[in-house]
Amino acid sequence: MQKSNIVQELDALTEYWSQKVLTEANCQQFKVAKGIGATNWHKHDDQDELFIIFSGEMTIGLRSGDVTLKEGDMFTVPKGVEHRPVAEKEAKFLVVGLNITSNKEGGKPN
Amino acid sequence: MQKSNIVQELDALTEYWSQKVLTEANCQQFKVAKGIGATNWHKHDDQDELFIIFSGEMTIGLRSGDVTLKEGDMFTVPKGVEHRPVAEKEAKFLVVGLNITSNKEGGKPN
Repeated sequence: MQKSNIVQELDALTEYWSQKVLTEANCQQFKVAKGIGATNWHKHDDQDELFIIFSGEMTIGLRSGDVTLKEGDMFTVPKGVEHRPVAEKEAKFLVVGLNITSNKEGGKPN
Repeated sequence: MQKSNIVQELDALTEYWSQKVLTEANCQQFKVAKGIGATNWHKHDDQDELFIIFSGEMTIGLRSGDVTLKEGDMFTVPKGVEHRPVAEKEAKFLVVGLNITSNKEGGKPN
């Protein structure tokens, strides 16, 4: 049982759109990541993906209309729903899901 | 798909140690709560319980030694582990778990 500080972990990240797992609970991974620019459009057929914004601003592009998230905002992308996170400036956030999605299938840009 | 703002939802809470569900993802409930004083010692045999502190300070009493959490800190109490949250001043936090635990079995004080 280790505590971690989300803000410090976010500040220590070096790579954009990569996820670092801080802890697990009930088979969910709680991961920190930072983004700038956009990922590719993608979806996760096996899991919902939840975002909590800790700094900056991120827009979740959705086919049904974009949702803009600011500090303190929480949003769930249901499984199977196509989405594309976009951050005009650097955004730092927590991602919760069943496993790491920072790969090509998870929309990570080249 | 609705976004919610954790800080605003925390500020709107009126009752201590009660949990309000903001969203669900992968069968997890993401709940806001505020605490002052202490709950009773309790455990959850069916679920891990994860805390993220948004303001104030909360100590998670554990039989193996207390863990003090400050703003930005995240901590998981594994299922079956006895614990007792204590806040000398008001603490506001996010709780993640399978269902609402703000009842007598969940340690809620009388």
